[in-house]
Amino acid sequence: MEEKGISRAVIKRLPRYYRYLGELLEDGVERISSGELSERMKVTASQIRQDLNNFGGFGQQGYGYNVRYLYSEIGKILGLDRVHNMIFVGAGNLGQALANYAAFERSGFKTVGIFDVNPVLKGISVRGIEIRMADELPEFIKEHHVEIAALTLPKAKAVEMAEILVDNGVKAIWNFAHTDLNLKLPKDVIVENVHLSESLMRLSYNLTRYEAEHPKNN
Amino acid sequence: MEEKGISRAVIKRLPRYYRYLGELLEDGVERISSGELSERMKVTASQIRQDLNNFGGFGQQGYGYNVRYLYSEIGKILGLDRVHNMIFVGAGNLGQALANYAAFERSGFKTVGIFDVNPVLKGISVRGIEIRMADELPEFIKEHHVEIAALTLPKAKAVEMAEILVDNGVKAIWNFAHTDLNLKLPKDVIVENVHLSESLMRLSYNLTRYEAEHPKNN
Repeated sequence: MEEKGISRAVIKRLPRYYRYLGELLEDGVERISSGELSERMKVTASQIRQDLNNFGGFGQQGYGYNVRYLYSEIGKILGLDRVHNMIFVGAGNLGQALANYAAFERSGFKTVGIFDVNPVLKGISVRGIEIRMADELPEFIKEHHVEIAALTLPKAKAVEMAEILVDNGVKAIWNFAHTDLNLKLPKDVIVENVHLSESLMRLSYNLTRYEAEHPKNN
Repeated sequence: MEEKGISRAVIKRLPRYYRYLGELLEDGVERISSGELSERMKVTASQIRQDLNNFGGFGQQGYGYNVRYLYSEIGKILGLDRVHNMIFVGAGNLGQALANYAAFERSGFKTVGIFDVNPVLKGISVRGIEIRMADELPEFIKEHHVEIAALTLPKAKAVEMAEILVDNGVKAIWNFAHTDLNLKLPKDVIVENVHLSESLMRLSYNLTRYEAEHPKNN
């Protein structure tokens, strides 16, 4: 499967295809035309054909897409066909909540450890995994082949901690700290940011615009 | 201030400007040139000038930007100069964790209520706010002038709940459920999605690509 030079926009859309195909499978749908998929997802059929053609194209003229096959192939492209060992660094509210969220596990993201620097949290169990202290990280990462670390800690500690993680073999960071980690780490470290505050600000921007345009509704 | 027709890309970048300017303020920086800001943010100086010109331009030739003024003006554009009442619908791990996260409050997003359908959770207190049952929503929304609802519940209940919220006056939904709510609600409802699973899948895609290109590192 040739997939060099795929645009970021396509990659951004793949998980959404995967989600819709998963829902179709749950509904017992075995095949679907790009037209029907287009109707469901509110993107044009030609966009769908073009996106999926990046991966060799999965459709057959007059038949449509085989839902299970397409779901499984996109899963492989997304790396969901194998288990990724993941740790959470920062066991505050957000870290504990996400570590508690079993749905990631179903997609192959296995939480193998939870870490913090606060000794008060030491030994507390989250979904059967006890919180460890950060000084155990180097050994733990190697021993458990940790690939992904979710950084759920305040920005003041984020860079320092990320450097320890990367030095010890973590290849990808799921960053919830409010800082642009990717500017501060080696280029080959994969960083995926979730900036919740910025998301809330975009919502607030749209709300403010809306209210300015509809003064009677206030 | 004229701000019609601003592109989504600019709006997406505004919270990042706001964050950097806030950090500069914390560091005691009073003015900054687009060149220095560009160096910090790793975007081109011309991009910065172009983005900020959308809002009338805040810079003075040879002086640079007044950090406090620019921070405050962008805050206004983002609607952060006033309080937005917010509720969480879904008091599971994620809902409770986010409701516990005081940083949103500092930006003016005030959590006034937390709701669930599970009677076991009734009356449990999160940061001094007790969890209420969903049947109290209609009255509560009106009484407390709730503008924003964070939907932190499973997708099976998301659409039904969103409709109740919107019918009772909620104008914006911060959606954590794994469904494209915006396709199922009236067009003037503001929906900001946070799809955590999709973010993790993009990370996994990049990790898988990286490992395919660097087989020796495995």
